[in-house]
Amino acid sequence: MPIYRLDLSYDGSGFHGYARQPTVRTVQGELEAVLARVLEPVDTVVAGRTDAGVHACHQVVSFSTGKLVDPDRLARSLTKLLGPEIVVYAAARVPEDFSARFSATRRTYRYRVLNSPFPDPLRRATSWHVREPLDLEAMNRAVGYLVGEHDFASFCRRREGASTVRTVLSAGWSARSDSILELEIAGTAFCHQMVRSIVALSVDVGRGRIEPGTTPLILDAKDRNRARGAAPPHGLVLWQVDY
Amino acid sequence: MPIYRLDLSYDGSGFHGYARQPTVRTVQGELEAVLARVLEPVDTVVAGRTDAGVHACHQVVSFSTGKLVDPDRLARSLTKLLGPEIVVYAAARVPEDFSARFSATRRTYRYRVLNSPFPDPLRRATSWHVREPLDLEAMNRAVGYLVGEHDFASFCRRREGASTVRTVLSAGWSARSDSILELEIAGTAFCHQMVRSIVALSVDVGRGRIEPGTTPLILDAKDRNRARGAAPPHGLVLWQVDY
Repeated sequence: MPIYRLDLSYDGSGFHGYARQPTVRTVQGELEAVLARVLEPVDTVVAGRTDAGVHACHQVVSFSTGKLVDPDRLARSLTKLLGPEIVVYAAARVPEDFSARFSATRRTYRYRVLNSPFPDPLRRATSWHVREPLDLEAMNRAVGYLVGEHDFASFCRRREGASTVRTVLSAGWSARSDSILELEIAGTAFCHQMVRSIVALSVDVGRGRIEPGTTPLILDAKDRNRARGAAPPHGLVLWQVDY
Repeated sequence: MPIYRLDLSYDGSGFHGYARQPTVRTVQGELEAVLARVLEPVDTVVAGRTDAGVHACHQVVSFSTGKLVDPDRLARSLTKLLGPEIVVYAAARVPEDFSARFSATRRTYRYRVLNSPFPDPLRRATSWHVREPLDLEAMNRAVGYLVGEHDFASFCRRREGASTVRTVLSAGWSARSDSILELEIAGTAFCHQMVRSIVALSVDVGRGRIEPGTTPLILDAKDRNRARGAAPPHGLVLWQVDY
C-alpha cells in the first residue's frame, strides 16, 4: 500500500506526550482521530516519541493507506482540524520502504535553559529556569565526553531487554542571548529521557556541583543511579529529523 | 507617604489587559488584590496600560503606602503569589515625586511578526503570523516617516478631548531570524492602539498593498479611517520603560 509522510510541529504543553494512551490527550491520539475523520483509521509510525510537555519543531510521522490522497490538501485539512497546537506543514507520498522511525538517520534536539535571577513569564513553557550562574565552558567540556558510540545506560530510563547503546553525533551548549543557554544535540537515535538526563548533568556541572571530568565515570558506570536525574520536559524541543 | 516602585513582567495571554475592570481578570486587578493581601489596599499607577493579550518584559508600577515595606521581601512575596504569569523582579523605595506614569521619559515596545508559509505552535501567543513574504526595506521606509513629533490621530483609537500628539524617538524593523521580523519602537508615550496601527500599516507596506510613501499622507489626514486597522495584540510586548 502507498506510504505517506507528514512533517509537523507542536506545542507539547497541553499533551500527555506524543504516544497514544487510552484516557489522556496525546499528540498521536489527536492526529490519528483526525486522520480517521478525513481519510480512514490508520496506524502511524513516528520518528521521536516525545514525553509529556516536550515540544517539536520538526516531527515526522508515516502511515500507509489504500485511500486516494492529495498530500497538500491533506496537510491543510489536518492543520485546520488540529490547530493551533499542532501544525502539519508538509505531506508527501514516499517510497514503500519508508518508515518515519526506522529510516531516520539523525535526530536533533534542542534544550533551553533560562539562566537568570528571575523567571520569565513568556518563556515558562519553553525553558528551564536556573537561577545560579552557569559555567558554559564547563558544560561544553562535560557534553564533549558523550560524543560517539557509548552505552548510555546511566542516562536512560531502563526498559527490560532494550539496548541502551546509542551514537551521539554532536553536542554543544551555546549562549543564544544574555540569559538563554541552549544545548543542541544530534544522534542517530536517543533512548528514553536521555537528552534530559544529559541536560541535568550539564547544569550540575555548570553550577559547579560536579566536575566536567565526572562525565566519563558516570557513563562507564552504566548505572541510572549514578546520573543527576532528568531536567524538566518543557525546555526540550525535537528540532529536526534527517533521513 | 513613601512611594514604592515595582518592576514586573507578564504573559498577557490570560488577562483582559492591564487596567482593572470590574468582572474580568486583569493584571492590575491581580496585582492590587495581592498587594492588599500582603500589605494593604493601595491604588497603583502604571507606566503603560497594555491591551488584552499584550505582554510586558518590563512594566513599572508605583504606589504609596504608610506601611513598613521591605522591598526585596515584597517582590518575592508578590512573585510567589502572582506567578507564573506575572513576575515582580524588582521593588524599591523611590523619591516622593516619582510616578510610574508621569516620570517615564521613554517607552519601548517590540512587535513580532512570524513571516512564514506555516504557523508555529510555539510562537502563537507571541507573534502575528503573516504568510505573504514581507519587504523589510519597504517597511523600514514606512516607519521612518513616523519618527519625530506628530499628531498621530490616524493611528490612535479616538478618546474625546485627549491629545494625539506624540513623539516617536526611534522605529525600525529587523530580521531576528529567517522567519521572525521585529519592530522596535520607542517614544515618550503612545496613545491607544498606536503601535499596533503602525504595525498594520508596516505589514500592508511589506505585502506591497500600499507604498511606503503613503505613510505621510495617512499621518497628515489625522483621520483614523485612513489607517490600516490594528495588528493583533499578542505580537506586542512592552519592552522597556526609562525614567
